[in-house]
Amino acid sequence: MLRVPMGVKLLSFDFDEIAGIINARSLAIVGASGAPMKFGSFYTSAQLQMEFDGPLYLVNPHEKEIMGRKVYPDLKSLPETPDVVALTIPAHRSIEMLRDCAELGVKGVIMIASGFREIGSKGIALEKEALELAREGGFRIVGPNCFGIYNPRNRMTVLPGYDFSKSPGRIAFISQSGGYSVHVARQAQSLGLGFSAVVSYGNAADLNETDFLRYFTLDGHTDIIAGYLEGVMDGDGFPQALAEASAVKPVVLWKVGRSESSRRAVASHTGSMAGSSEIWEGLIRQHEVIPASGVDEMVDILLALEHFGRRPGRRLLMASGGGGIGTYAGDIAEAEGLSVPPLEGECLERMRVILSRAGAVAGNPLDIGAPLIPLPEFEGAMREAASNHSTDILVFDLAINFGHDLAGEPGLDLVGDILIRIRRETGKPLAVVLYSRSFDPDKLVVERILRRMRSKLLEQGIPVYPSIPRALRAIARVNI
Amino acid sequence: MLRVPMGVKLLSFDFDEIAGIINARSLAIVGASGAPMKFGSFYTSAQLQMEFDGPLYLVNPHEKEIMGRKVYPDLKSLPETPDVVALTIPAHRSIEMLRDCAELGVKGVIMIASGFREIGSKGIALEKEALELAREGGFRIVGPNCFGIYNPRNRMTVLPGYDFSKSPGRIAFISQSGGYSVHVARQAQSLGLGFSAVVSYGNAADLNETDFLRYFTLDGHTDIIAGYLEGVMDGDGFPQALAEASAVKPVVLWKVGRSESSRRAVASHTGSMAGSSEIWEGLIRQHEVIPASGVDEMVDILLALEHFGRRPGRRLLMASGGGGIGTYAGDIAEAEGLSVPPLEGECLERMRVILSRAGAVAGNPLDIGAPLIPLPEFEGAMREAASNHSTDILVFDLAINFGHDLAGEPGLDLVGDILIRIRRETGKPLAVVLYSRSFDPDKLVVERILRRMRSKLLEQGIPVYPSIPRALRAIARVNI
Repeated sequence: MLRVPMGVKLLSFDFDEIAGIINARSLAIVGASGAPMKFGSFYTSAQLQMEFDGPLYLVNPHEKEIMGRKVYPDLKSLPETPDVVALTIPAHRSIEMLRDCAELGVKGVIMIASGFREIGSKGIALEKEALELAREGGFRIVGPNCFGIYNPRNRMTVLPGYDFSKSPGRIAFISQSGGYSVHVARQAQSLGLGFSAVVSYGNAADLNETDFLRYFTLDGHTDIIAGYLEGVMDGDGFPQALAEASAVKPVVLWKVGRSESSRRAVASHTGSMAGSSEIWEGLIRQHEVIPASGVDEMVDILLALEHFGRRPGRRLLMASGGGGIGTYAGDIAEAEGLSVPPLEGECLERMRVILSRAGAVAGNPLDIGAPLIPLPEFEGAMREAASNHSTDILVFDLAINFGHDLAGEPGLDLVGDILIRIRRETGKPLAVVLYSRSFDPDKLVVERILRRMRSKLLEQGIPVYPSIPRALRAIARVNI
Repeated sequence: MLRVPMGVKLLSFDFDEIAGIINARSLAIVGASGAPMKFGSFYTSAQLQMEFDGPLYLVNPHEKEIMGRKVYPDLKSLPETPDVVALTIPAHRSIEMLRDCAELGVKGVIMIASGFREIGSKGIALEKEALELAREGGFRIVGPNCFGIYNPRNRMTVLPGYDFSKSPGRIAFISQSGGYSVHVARQAQSLGLGFSAVVSYGNAADLNETDFLRYFTLDGHTDIIAGYLEGVMDGDGFPQALAEASAVKPVVLWKVGRSESSRRAVASHTGSMAGSSEIWEGLIRQHEVIPASGVDEMVDILLALEHFGRRPGRRLLMASGGGGIGTYAGDIAEAEGLSVPPLEGECLERMRVILSRAGAVAGNPLDIGAPLIPLPEFEGAMREAASNHSTDILVFDLAINFGHDLAGEPGLDLVGDILIRIRRETGKPLAVVLYSRSFDPDKLVVERILRRMRSKLLEQGIPVYPSIPRALRAIARVNI
C-alpha cells in the first residue's frame, strides 16, 4: 500500500554496504567546479571547508585545477577507486558516469541532480537505467535528486553544509528533502545538538528510508533517529523497520502528504506517493513514534530528547516573574496533555516563607513577583521548586528583556549561573523560555545577550525555547 | 455567570469619562522616585522619556527633585488639579491618596500596586474602600494591580513603556495583564504595528473590560480591538458589548483560564473568575471574534489584520525555491482550513514557459527550483503568481539564509525590491516567510539582514512571518 514500484527489485538490507558509504574513506566529486552558482562548486567548496578525512578527488574534463586542487579528467584517471562518487552533473549525463562506477567497483554513488522519476516518464526511464547499472556493478545509490550525506566522523558533508559541525553528536537525521536536511541540521547545531549523520536521500531509487532506518537502528553512533518522509519505497519492510527502530531508540518522524496539495507537491518533488494518512497515523501510534511537523517542531523535540530523554514526565512546575505567564501556561499545558499540579503541604509553606513579598504568589504556577527579584530569594525559590517531588520538570520563563532593563547583562548572567547551579545540584530537568521582545533591525543588543545566555544554558544541559507553547509542546511530544 | 461581584455597583458606561482619562491633558505621578529598581522610578523615567504632552507633576513627600524635575510633597500642593493621578505607592498607602483625589476632583486614578482583591479578604476590603472613595469623589479607577495606559497621542505611557512608539496606529489593546500589555505592544511595534492605545486594567475594580471594549468600539482612532482577558467583571454587559464591537471592528481575544491551573493563576493574579470555557467559546463563535492564544499568535494575527484586513480569502498560492516547503505547506494549510488549489489552464502554461528549467515545478505549490533564480525569471514567476485569480493570497518563502549564501545582501535586496514592486503593481495580498537559520551567539550577520529585509517589506504592506505554520495560522484566523 505504501509502496512505489520501480520495476527493479529492492535488495535486502545490508548494514556493511551502507556503513561503507556513510563512512567512506575516499571520495570523488564528479562535476567539481570552481564556477560560482553551480552545484558542483557548492559541493566542492563545502567538502574542502569540511576537510574530508581521506583522499578527495575532483573530477571534471574541462578543468585542470579548482580551488588550488588538482582535477582529474575522469574517474578512470584517479590513482585509486574511491569508496564513494558524488555526481554533481545533470541527469542526462549521469548514466555514462555510472558505467565507469560499475567498471571500477565503487561502493556507492550519491546522485545529486534532479530530473529523474519526479519529472515523469523520461526521468523514470533514466532512473531505472541507473538502478540497473548499480545492480550490475554491485554499488548502491543514494538519491538521485538529493543533497547526500553529512558525517562529521569522516567529514563528508552535504550540499550546502560547508558550515556544519566537525564534532559528532548522537542524532541521525534521514530526510527525503535536501533543503530540510540542511535546514534542520543548521538550526539544531546552532542550539548545541550534534549529529551522528544526516542523510538526504531524495527519490530513494535504491537505498531508501527503510534501509537507512534499519542502519541507524543498528548504528552504535546513533541514539536518536529523526526523519522527514514524503513517501515510502519499501512498503513491506518499513512497518517492521519502524517497530524495530522505536523499540530501541526514540524515533521522531515528520511525515508530509496528508493534504491533496501536499500529495501533488510530493509527487513532483521526489516522485513519491504519500500513502494513506490513516495508515501513517496508525503506524506512528502503534510504534510510539514521536510525530513532528515542521522544522521548528522537529528541532524543539530533538532538544527535549537530548536534554530530558524519552518520557521525562508530564507534571510541570511553571515559574515566572509575573502572573500572566502562569495564567496562560496552564491552558497550553492542559491542551497538550501535561499537568500543572498545585503546590501543596510543606513545599508550599517553605515557598511562602521564601517569597514573603507583595506581588509574589507561592503556588504552581509560581509567580516570583517580578521578572528579577533579589538573587538570594530567586535562588531559594528556584531551589525549592527544583526539589518539588510532585512535579517532573521545572519550566522557567526568564523574561530576559525585562531582566535586561532591570539589571543589564551582568545581572542576567548571575541569574543564569543560579539556574545552572540548581540544575546541576538537584538533577531536576529544567527548561528555560527566552523570547525576543523586539524585532527592530537596529536593536540587536538584547538578541545578542539572549543568544549568549541560551548557549550558556544549553551547554549545561538546560534546553531553551522561544515561547511557552513551543516548550510545552516539545515536552508533551517526548512524553508520547 | 461571568460576573465577579464586588459589593459596589457598576456604573453605566460613559464614553467621555474614559476619554478624559485616556486623553488626559495633565498627569501627576504619586510615588515618583529616582531610586533605581522602584516602580515609581520606572514609571517616572518612562513618562519623561515619552515626553508627556501636558503638565506632568511628580509627587513624593521625601524628595525635592527627581531626574532634574521639581517634586511636590502632595497632591494638594500642585498648581492645578491634574486630570489623571497615577499611584505608584503600596496598596495600604493608597487610600489616603484617594481621599485627596476625591477632594480635588480628578477625573481618573491609575492604581499600579498589587495587594488588593487578588490577595484575599484584606485586599478585597481595601479595594472596596478605594471604589467607594471613587464613587464619592466622582472619579474613575483604572486598576489596581495594573500597568496603566499607553496613548501615543498625549504621550502617556504604561510601566515600563519608555521605548513605546510616539506615533499612533489604529490598534487598541486592552489587557488584564500588565506584563502582556507591554510584551504585545513591544513585539507589535517592532513589526511596524501601531496602537491607538494600550490599556492594562488589572483587577478592574471600577473601569473594566466591558467599559474599555465599548470605548474602543466608539473610538474614532481605533480600527482593530485586541484583548487579553482573565475574567469578566460585567457579566451582564459584556456579551452585548462584544456583539456591538465585532459588528463594526475586528476583535481579537486572547482568553485564558480554560484549565484548572490557569484558573488558580487567574484568581491569584487579578482575583478574577475565569468563567465557563463553554460560554466563552460560544460567545467567540457567535460574534465571529478572532481567538488568539499567546503573544506570538496575537501579534501574528494583528499583522495579518493590518495588511490583509478581515477575511482576505482562504485560497493560497504557496511559492518557494525548493520542493520541501510545498509538501509541508499544503498539510498545514488544510489543517487550518485554507486551500492550495492547483494551478490550471493558461496560468499554468505561462508559468511553465517562465520556469522552463530543470528543478522548477510550475504548479501550486510553486517550486521556482532554487532559493534564488535569475532575477528576470523570478520576477516573471512572481508576477504570474500574483496575477492568478483562483487564489487570494500569495505566500512566498524567501529562504533568506540560502539566498545570503548565494547572492549576499545586495542580491537579497533586489529580491525584496521585486516583491515590493509586484505587491504594489498587482495589489495582490502577499505574505513573506523569513526564518533564521542559525541561533549562534556570534553569527548575527544573517539576523541583521533578515531584520532589515523584514522592515523593508513591512513598510511596503507585506507582512512577514518567521515560519510557514505561523503565516498560515494567522491567515486562517483573520478569515474566521
